[in-house]
Amino acid sequence: MRLIRLGLLAVMASQFMLSPAYAGSEIQTLIDMLHQNGTVSDAQYGRLMAELEQTEKTKQQQEAVERQGQPDDVIAQLKGGPSVKTRDGAFEMKLSGRLQVDAAAYSGKPMMGDGTEIRRAFLTLSGRMYTDWGYRFQYNFVNTGINGRGLLDAYTTYQGFEGVQIQLGNFRDPFILQELTSDKYITFSERALTSAFASGRHIGLMASHVEKKGSWAVGLFGDTISTHGGPDNEGWGANIRTTYSPINEQRKLLHLGLAMQYRDTGGAGELRFKQEAETHISGVDIVDTGIMSRTKDSLKIGAELATVYGPFSAQAEYIDTQVHRNGFDDLNFDGWYAETAYFLTGESRQYKKGKFSSPKPKFNVGEGGIGAWQLALRYSHINLNDGLINGGEADAMTLGLNWFATPTLRFTANYIDVLDVEGGPHAGQEPSVFQVRSQWAF
Amino acid sequence: MRLIRLGLLAVMASQFMLSPAYAGSEIQTLIDMLHQNGTVSDAQYGRLMAELEQTEKTKQQQEAVERQGQPDDVIAQLKGGPSVKTRDGAFEMKLSGRLQVDAAAYSGKPMMGDGTEIRRAFLTLSGRMYTDWGYRFQYNFVNTGINGRGLLDAYTTYQGFEGVQIQLGNFRDPFILQELTSDKYITFSERALTSAFASGRHIGLMASHVEKKGSWAVGLFGDTISTHGGPDNEGWGANIRTTYSPINEQRKLLHLGLAMQYRDTGGAGELRFKQEAETHISGVDIVDTGIMSRTKDSLKIGAELATVYGPFSAQAEYIDTQVHRNGFDDLNFDGWYAETAYFLTGESRQYKKGKFSSPKPKFNVGEGGIGAWQLALRYSHINLNDGLINGGEADAMTLGLNWFATPTLRFTANYIDVLDVEGGPHAGQEPSVFQVRSQWAF
Amino acid sequence: MRLIRLGLLAVMASQFMLSPAYAGSEIQTLIDMLHQNGTVSDAQYGRLMAELEQTEKTKQQQEAVERQGQPDDVIAQLKGGPSVKTRDGAFEMKLSGRLQVDAAAYSGKPMMGDGTEIRRAFLTLSGRMYTDWGYRFQYNFVNTGINGRGLLDAYTTYQGFEGVQIQLGNFRDPFILQELTSDKYITFSERALTSAFASGRHIGLMASHVEKKGSWAVGLFGDTISTHGGPDNEGWGANIRTTYSPINEQRKLLHLGLAMQYRDTGGAGELRFKQEAETHISGVDIVDTGIMSRTKDSLKIGAELATVYGPFSAQAEYIDTQVHRNGFDDLNFDGWYAETAYFLTGESRQYKKGKFSSPKPKFNVGEGGIGAWQLALRYSHINLNDGLINGGEADAMTLGLNWFATPTLRFTANYIDVLDVEGGPHAGQEPSVFQVRSQWAF
Repeated sequence: MRLIRLGLLAVMASQFMLSPAYAGSEIQTLIDMLHQNGTVSDAQYGRLMAELEQTEKTKQQQEAVERQGQPDDVIAQLKGGPSVKTRDGAFEMKLSGRLQVDAAAYSGKPMMGDGTEIRRAFLTLSGRMYTDWGYRFQYNFVNTGINGRGLLDAYTTYQGFEGVQIQLGNFRDPFILQELTSDKYITFSERALTSAFASGRHIGLMASHVEKKGSWAVGLFGDTISTHGGPDNEGWGANIRTTYSPINEQRKLLHLGLAMQYRDTGGAGELRFKQEAETHISGVDIVDTGIMSRTKDSLKIGAELATVYGPFSAQAEYIDTQVHRNGFDDLNFDGWYAETAYFLTGESRQYKKGKFSSPKPKFNVGEGGIGAWQLALRYSHINLNDGLINGGEADAMTLGLNWFATPTLRFTANYIDVLDVEGGPHAGQEPSVFQVRSQWAF
Repeated sequence: MRLIRLGLLAVMASQFMLSPAYAGSEIQTLIDMLHQNGTVSDAQYGRLMAELEQTEKTKQQQEAVERQGQPDDVIAQLKGGPSVKTRDGAFEMKLSGRLQVDAAAYSGKPMMGDGTEIRRAFLTLSGRMYTDWGYRFQYNFVNTGINGRGLLDAYTTYQGFEGVQIQLGNFRDPFILQELTSDKYITFSERALTSAFASGRHIGLMASHVEKKGSWAVGLFGDTISTHGGPDNEGWGANIRTTYSPINEQRKLLHLGLAMQYRDTGGAGELRFKQEAETHISGVDIVDTGIMSRTKDSLKIGAELATVYGPFSAQAEYIDTQVHRNGFDDLNFDGWYAETAYFLTGESRQYKKGKFSSPKPKFNVGEGGIGAWQLALRYSHINLNDGLINGGEADAMTLGLNWFATPTLRFTANYIDVLDVEGGPHAGQEPSVFQVRSQWAF
Repeated sequence: MRLIRLGLLAVMASQFMLSPAYAGSEIQTLIDMLHQNGTVSDAQYGRLMAELEQTEKTKQQQEAVERQGQPDDVIAQLKGGPSVKTRDGAFEMKLSGRLQVDAAAYSGKPMMGDGTEIRRAFLTLSGRMYTDWGYRFQYNFVNTGINGRGLLDAYTTYQGFEGVQIQLGNFRDPFILQELTSDKYITFSERALTSAFASGRHIGLMASHVEKKGSWAVGLFGDTISTHGGPDNEGWGANIRTTYSPINEQRKLLHLGLAMQYRDTGGAGELRFKQEAETHISGVDIVDTGIMSRTKDSLKIGAELATVYGPFSAQAEYIDTQVHRNGFDDLNFDGWYAETAYFLTGESRQYKKGKFSSPKPKFNVGEGGIGAWQLALRYSHINLNDGLINGGEADAMTLGLNWFATPTLRFTANYIDVLDVEGGPHAGQEPSVFQVRSQWAF
């Protein structure tokens, strides 16, 4: 802020320096006149000129000190979340927070308990040090029961190589658009049924590159923070994701993506896919393979398609998963979803660096506006039945309404209808869900 | 701070503007004189005046830029805990902390282990965004074993309606004065035996209003953060509390309060009341109903009375609890306490918004003073015996000494004598407790 | 920062005040001249002088307001971690962070699982209030499973007594140099085998004194945060440590230390010593006494020796532990280690207040340098065999390489060879370990 102010001053100052009558020039002019008409002698004139010069020099030195500031002088900001940075830009730090308060009511089978929940309570500290080194540290304060499970992002980055970022620590594998898009910005309260194949976060090393027309990321990953192998080796994996966005304008987007994930299960040799009915409070999984023992590894492939056209947006993904086991046949599971949304108030979905980001209401509540209103519809499908595994096949349709009151406050109402459950722990049971969320995030 | 300084400057500046000889006026005066006595010609005078005017204009513009600042320019403060706010006041954020270090020694039966404890280690982030939207986020770093149990306050507020505040998230139900008064400010280390009927925090929605002569709050609540219903519905409740303070002056208070809480136990149908002997380290409950199964709901009524008269203060509460069960007779439990305290050093107990707040020592230790010293006495009673339930009936008397060294440091010593235990798990056992606390809170 | 700037201004200002031709003096000089040569009359001269004086007075008042600032005006800094302090220095607060990302591969017996780990994820808040009262609050976000176990330092200090600091809360007992030196600054990824005898943190009260040539600390301690005695008394202990540093210069050090710890096991009467093979990921203890029941108390004695000579440093410790049991013979265990390290890039190990602190690379990566590179070697020995206890005896040799890229980033590679395991759960098994760490700490 002060930087801007000082900049303005500098502009103003330079402007007046160039004009013939610069600020404070009247004393010089007066002395010149008095010298010319003989009131002031030559000797007196010399002394006055020396003093005048000294005054000007002192003033300039003072201004230089004030304007330049010290290199690690700090500039603070609060509006978009509190942040500080040094004037030279080499260091910065930002605090972010997120609170999601949910309530849900269920009808139909299976029995699912109505209730309320703090879905997420995050604090995030991120920043930069010595110009090229970044960090991000994110904790979920309602997910603390198991050692380290509440620790989400915990990594450092290096951006000293031209265009390529190196990332080390715990973070999301680069896989599936709806997983990489923050839960703050996904269109519905919960991700689609295909989230069963989500890759989650692992401790790893990743190289990535982003430009306007596309991005790529490759990574090598160990296991999760909470996994402690003991005598067994932990699991490991490798990921690759590329995106292509031939159209990427302010309110116009075409996004294509392709990603692959290989994971070795490590010494434990176990794998499990399960998913709730696009709701979280009841904790009942509508499909569930159970633990598949003697699993060697798995290979997942995901294809992404997304578009924005003014207030309209759409997004679809397909994920195929192959599971290789020792002494059993290979398995194949898959799923897909398609969603579309429309801003009644004319805003546009925001896209940045290969994923979606925060929509901003045109006019905030409390500043004379009604915020941004968005209607959305989604259809999703998952199939966890294959060979000896009877995890279940399910479809779900969701109708959603979002209200972004200010850039920091979002309210969401979702109605989910589970349509067609074949096999699995809840075969033939088709519940419906009504859930609301209040989200405060900065 | 800079706001204040700039304000002073503005006052000083305006003062001199109005005086006939304003700052820097001597050059103008001199030129006028020289023009009058003919040393300076009319043409020369015109040029000098133009330059003088230009100088004045430039100076005023510079000052305007410096004084006004940018709208989200940030003002920081540290003394009463670190806080930042924007110059326009629309955004602010504050960090608070609390550390309570306890030690206790026990004598008599039941066996209670002597020891030490970090009773509470809190950090709290609170603030305001876009003028009307507030938030508060509080975590207890020593209560982390069960998912989300360490998360205390986690809510957002809306204050855009005239005088009525809307609150959404996880927070204390508005019930019982001693529960609503922060543990930083209660008179003794632990709350009275009636804390068995404390309502605690739930996820809910509340409307409230506070004025000098009274307050009201009504809320609808779900269950606690840590409760996950699974197939069963979670519990829910409704609360109302009103307070009336006909006398509410700096060192003089009369407070009356009345509150009701209804809670449905949800699908689990279980309820339990238990309480330690106004001590926490040993973890032994002196009264305990055990789990009362097949409970439908409960209704609690609380009456509050408090007064302050200079250094003297007193406080009393009565709570009655009815429990309704399926296939069993209704139950009725109750309890009360009365306490009084006196500041030897003349300070007065502080009251704000229907509850007690922080006392401030007149003279801090380290600034030539001895801090504030307070003596206190409490008697409390609880009865958990009714019908088939034999939870126990107990009385306790506590003598307390508080030393507030600075506004951020408090030391407390309590001697508790349990007087009369009838029935329950510890019938006839009457322990005594000596406990000390060091509290750092900002 | 602004403080420095204002200081510079003050120096500059005073400099010109003293010079005969001070800033802005030309107008005074001109008026004097015009008065002398009769152009300005006596009356006019008086009026001009009055206005001139007024101008000077106003200017000085404005400068006084700007320079002095308000007493709790806040100075912020970011470079070495974010910190704020008041201009009068009575209040300050600092945030620190630490993230250690590890990977390890094992060979030989016992079976130890390869894998990755977030070894530590700390945030620390520390500061000072009302001049003499300090605080420190440190949490490990990956160690949260058991109540309060993630809370590390949580204490307040008082420094109002001349030279003696009082410390109250949860903190490390003053015992063993390698434990008191932060894990950020120890020479290898993990501490030596003697860490089995580490004293850890307890809730306690300590008095300490530090000067250039030595230090002492005595403390009385209760039990750990996570210990809850229930009906049994918790354990307690007493510690004393003294250090002597006859040579303590910038790049030259001789440090001698002696420490004792007595601990009563409390009502539980249990004690156990165990240690991993200087690695953490696999979680396998190479030596382990198992739980020694009916233990009354233990007495540990530690001797420390450390030296720095330019880029070279060395450190050795010996710890002897006596265990007293009811109905069993006393036991005696011991261990020692010796390590040496050399900065290839010429830096020197830093020593402060009786322990080692952060080395600073001469030239940072990203600022034209290659950081600091350090080679290190360690030999350590532990013996947990005595009487009926067969915990095992083991030796280990470690080769280490450290790269400090910037003051906030360190990368470490260690190769550990377990040499000689006699007795205990892994008798005759001699694994080797290769492990790497990336550490971000500010």
